[in-house]
Amino acid sequence: MEVVEKLKRLGEEICTQIERGEYPFLDLPSRTTNNIVYDPERGRFTLGEAKIRRSTSNLKHLRSFTQTVWVAWIAKRLVEEGKTATLRDIYYLAESYKVKFKDQQESDSIVADLEALLGVPREKLGIFPEERATVYGDLTIRYNMPGYEEHTLKLTASPDGVAIGPALTNATFEDCGAEKVVMVESGGMFTRLIEEKAHEKFKAILIHTAGQAPRSARQFAYRLNRELNLPVYIFTDGDPWGAHIAMVVISGSANAAHIDDVAIPGARWIGILPADIEEYRLPSEKFNEKDWKRLGELTADPRYQSPFWREQLRKFEETGRKAEQQALSAHGLSYVTEKYLPEKIS
Amino acid sequence: MEVVEKLKRLGEEICTQIERGEYPFLDLPSRTTNNIVYDPERGRFTLGEAKIRRSTSNLKHLRSFTQTVWVAWIAKRLVEEGKTATLRDIYYLAESYKVKFKDQQESDSIVADLEALLGVPREKLGIFPEERATVYGDLTIRYNMPGYEEHTLKLTASPDGVAIGPALTNATFEDCGAEKVVMVESGGMFTRLIEEKAHEKFKAILIHTAGQAPRSARQFAYRLNRELNLPVYIFTDGDPWGAHIAMVVISGSANAAHIDDVAIPGARWIGILPADIEEYRLPSEKFNEKDWKRLGELTADPRYQSPFWREQLRKFEETGRKAEQQALSAHGLSYVTEKYLPEKIS
Repeated sequence: MEVVEKLKRLGEEICTQIERGEYPFLDLPSRTTNNIVYDPERGRFTLGEAKIRRSTSNLKHLRSFTQTVWVAWIAKRLVEEGKTATLRDIYYLAESYKVKFKDQQESDSIVADLEALLGVPREKLGIFPEERATVYGDLTIRYNMPGYEEHTLKLTASPDGVAIGPALTNATFEDCGAEKVVMVESGGMFTRLIEEKAHEKFKAILIHTAGQAPRSARQFAYRLNRELNLPVYIFTDGDPWGAHIAMVVISGSANAAHIDDVAIPGARWIGILPADIEEYRLPSEKFNEKDWKRLGELTADPRYQSPFWREQLRKFEETGRKAEQQALSAHGLSYVTEKYLPEKIS
Repeated sequence: MEVVEKLKRLGEEICTQIERGEYPFLDLPSRTTNNIVYDPERGRFTLGEAKIRRSTSNLKHLRSFTQTVWVAWIAKRLVEEGKTATLRDIYYLAESYKVKFKDQQESDSIVADLEALLGVPREKLGIFPEERATVYGDLTIRYNMPGYEEHTLKLTASPDGVAIGPALTNATFEDCGAEKVVMVESGGMFTRLIEEKAHEKFKAILIHTAGQAPRSARQFAYRLNRELNLPVYIFTDGDPWGAHIAMVVISGSANAAHIDDVAIPGARWIGILPADIEEYRLPSEKFNEKDWKRLGELTADPRYQSPFWREQLRKFEETGRKAEQQALSAHGLSYVTEKYLPEKIS
């Protein structure tokens, strides 16, 4: 209900401005590049102090002001009715209210403005992206959506995993027998770990990110870390893309600098590290042009300046080789749970 | 156990050949393009009569013969141990047995050879692709995997849907309150339908295909159709890609011509049809170059020669416009369940 309160207050403020005879306006934290600063202490991006005023007294602002107020209004309806919409839905839904967005990029950006304005991630506003991650493990949750009150689910109920959609994102944690979280890049490895009973051996909740983790997956891991004190490990392919999946979990992304509740600074990348490729004699491939380009970008990124990360990038630079998680199967299907993970997690 | 029997018999045959003093060989249905024929009566692709002999008396065949026998051997182990592997795992796993594949394309092709040889889809051999679909609805299943014996799950347990991975694919249907299956292309629409209680209103099991339906999703729908007599409806974006998602569900794909158990000839595409774009006044976009190219390919495809499908392609040709499922949100979030689907399904 806290979110609805915030949305109401926003509306009341605008009404007050009008009643006072003022042109209504909004003061938003600026999300432009020069207001996104890297905070080395917190190990993440945050917004600086710059604000922008979106005022109806300025003809140029009328459009974006109206869009922002409309998104706030639709978010309030979604939350109150216990419904959700995708970012794509929001873009189309606007048409039925004669609110114009020139493309989804524009409506996405207004959603982000509202997040920044309220200090609330869009998932709490009932707005979700399309992508879904999956989770499996000894955790019992209670849903909070209409029709599912008092409905609990243990996340081992489906051995293929349970999708982290709107319902699970907003669920309450009831009971947890796990002691850690392992985020896994590929679906093949996720299934492998379930079949090899990694969740029991390592007392782990497994989260399948399906490549770069969607924000709902990061938020879920964040909550497990924050509310249940579970350490988070990230297990990806051994290449610059895998490294960056881990980094975004740890430090957040620049375009979510305005959101506080996602980064997990204590999370750890457990591989496949570039040094593991030799150490575990994994079948590997040479970097292609894109890999080299990506490595260059990471090297310039402020998030990669700690000794651990500089060492990883240096090693990639030196070997120019990459290996997938699945490459561990070259030593047999159980190798990952009998040898690799025990050494990595301990 | 039937599959293990087939695999055993394959091994025994090879042993018998050796004991007789013959060079062992395999006679495989040919999967080359000129043996893939379209059967208009069954509305799908099948293999012709051509066979190829893979014989160890021919030096050129030694490599592929060994690969085939190895894949059969590993499949038998997987099935007996109740484990699964992804196609990617198979490629890497070969390394630990010093069996060489030059790339995953080669190992995928040998897996398909084995499917054709045994007449058994790879999912029954414990071999799965990476992609996962999701399902939701009034269906209770019983798992058949080790550690999950006697474990049942009602597929409404997770309001975000349950992943169709290896476990669900091989599960037994226990109890079903649904009367039809609706396959849905986008995740946003899938969630929309759950929130609007489409599963109750239409007594439908909802399957989220996430774009082109993975074979495990098509097989799951096929089983619901065959074992429980549920009609299957396919609901996609209104563009040539959406049409083809429906077509592959209905007629199967050319490169799975050797597999019988997947196509659902009675399944129906319920939109978004090109005519719906006008009829339901949906926001639409002009075809781009890729859309036109795809439309041309479909027009030449033997599967699209029935009156219904020719009409759909003609209409796309005429309007040159496309609309996403989400475009229905332009009339409000409930429009799809209150107006569009009732008219389409009745």
